[in-house]
Amino acid sequence: MTTTSSRRLYFAGIHDRTPSWRSVFAEKAPEITVVSPEEAAADPASIRYCLAWRPRPGELAALPNLQVVFGLGAGVDGILADTTIPAHLPIVRMVEKGLTKGMVEYVLWQVLYHHRRVWELEEAQAHGIWLDHSYPAPWDRTVGIMGLGEIGAAAAEQLAAFKFKLRGWSRSRKSLSNVACFAGAGELPAFLKGCDILVCLLPLTAETRGLLNADLFAHLPRGAALINAGRGAQLNEADFLAALQDGQIGSATLDVFQTEPLPKDHPFWQQKRLFVTPHNASMTEADAAVLAIRQQILDFEAGQPLRHLVDRQAGY
Amino acid sequence: MTTTSSRRLYFAGIHDRTPSWRSVFAEKAPEITVVSPEEAAADPASIRYCLAWRPRPGELAALPNLQVVFGLGAGVDGILADTTIPAHLPIVRMVEKGLTKGMVEYVLWQVLYHHRRVWELEEAQAHGIWLDHSYPAPWDRTVGIMGLGEIGAAAAEQLAAFKFKLRGWSRSRKSLSNVACFAGAGELPAFLKGCDILVCLLPLTAETRGLLNADLFAHLPRGAALINAGRGAQLNEADFLAALQDGQIGSATLDVFQTEPLPKDHPFWQQKRLFVTPHNASMTEADAAVLAIRQQILDFEAGQPLRHLVDRQAGY
Repeated sequence: MTTTSSRRLYFAGIHDRTPSWRSVFAEKAPEITVVSPEEAAADPASIRYCLAWRPRPGELAALPNLQVVFGLGAGVDGILADTTIPAHLPIVRMVEKGLTKGMVEYVLWQVLYHHRRVWELEEAQAHGIWLDHSYPAPWDRTVGIMGLGEIGAAAAEQLAAFKFKLRGWSRSRKSLSNVACFAGAGELPAFLKGCDILVCLLPLTAETRGLLNADLFAHLPRGAALINAGRGAQLNEADFLAALQDGQIGSATLDVFQTEPLPKDHPFWQQKRLFVTPHNASMTEADAAVLAIRQQILDFEAGQPLRHLVDRQAGY
Repeated sequence: MTTTSSRRLYFAGIHDRTPSWRSVFAEKAPEITVVSPEEAAADPASIRYCLAWRPRPGELAALPNLQVVFGLGAGVDGILADTTIPAHLPIVRMVEKGLTKGMVEYVLWQVLYHHRRVWELEEAQAHGIWLDHSYPAPWDRTVGIMGLGEIGAAAAEQLAAFKFKLRGWSRSRKSLSNVACFAGAGELPAFLKGCDILVCLLPLTAETRGLLNADLFAHLPRGAALINAGRGAQLNEADFLAALQDGQIGSATLDVFQTEPLPKDHPFWQQKRLFVTPHNASMTEADAAVLAIRQQILDFEAGQPLRHLVDRQAGY
């Protein structure tokens, strides 16, 4: 009989959340024992599982019997940044319906924000002006999605329900209904050429770092909107500011930044036609996440393969 | 052979749009001849069809051979306000997919606006503050829709796709999947009690005039959001202002007003947590509308019944 003590799980990089998550584990996954940092330090060899966000470099390598690392979010760049994690150790991305739903909600909300040009209405309201304000039909507006994984595909499906024209771009070629799919660096300019609203949902990898730069912006139609809900390091901030001020980028929404929290004196806060959200496009829901981790652990111990495994070479 | 001259159509209340619509009719419905106000005045007996928005009282009664009045929008209160329109004359509501799609788009956009409490993010951005900002899962948020016709049902379907909890209220009982349906004045308090976000899509009738008043607001949970995309005359503006300032209504979006354009000195413009849009939630798309009218006229002349007929007693 397996005792609960054999399933000891440690939180790396999110110590402040241990108490609240511990209670969710106690309720939803009593087979798993959440271990405090003090308990882990006292007996590192007892830890078999880890839930990680941005672990301290070396934090995971110090656990000799660690068997699986579960990421807290869809992006695992914060985990892969620690190059000391043993190569054999499997890393699992968080995939839970609430996280995906939240991202789709954010994408729809912000696509409509730019589609309807809210800032013009707000400006008119501030001056008491009843604006003669029109906007194209969604089928005359093309939304381009960079990143066609779990979240990108779900967002495309919802945007299609609203009758937006859709194109998508990904590293390897995908096939999605209602989406004109482009793949690889070679097809990026052709993809960008038709995007009125560009949505970045890419993972942060060596290839996507700094990808949203002046060269990319120059391929967009003049005045295109940019929504970045990928990672802050994908955006060249100086290039972006220049493109926004020049009008090549007409408007934008950013949820992620090079430095988070975004510093108080950062120029992004004061830009017109730029909406800043504090990296809260979507949040992992504790209940669903704990159930997903529990199932993976039970399956793993029963000899089933782990799902949503990270390809460290690809970076996601 | 029918000559085109027998299908003469006149624009009532929208004379300024005659030239642009005339060209759409010429392209999409060459069987129908659009008549200028001058031509109509010279030969009123030749007019058989009318496309109306807010006709001048008596304008339609002066056309002795008028056979059908087509409304330009989904709401026909602007037409029924003219009590001189002969009782036998059929009035047809505009139903075209673009109009419905636009309304659904607006409802989703504004539900997300209130769901995510944009004004808190905008306020934080203005002060360069990285806010610790969370919001409930959509399945912990109930959206109530007043009016479950063509548009209300389509909006409910989209909101359900985002996993909002839904309830609906209508004059006569409806049955919609994923929607807890309430009907009639007797069930209105029970309906309102659970609505975190209330969306009004009702037609303007004797029963709905002034319906959005202090008494109704008092039945909502404290701090509920109100979205009115029905008609301005449904909102008691003084009651609404008091409820917004008191906090009983937490936030609101209004697309329609007692007086349109909303006067420059109206207090609505300057309210916090109130987003004003200039009655442009959705717009009838000329191409689709002309095709819909053309088909109705051809069917009508072939002896088929008209669709989307207005019940003048009910007022919609």
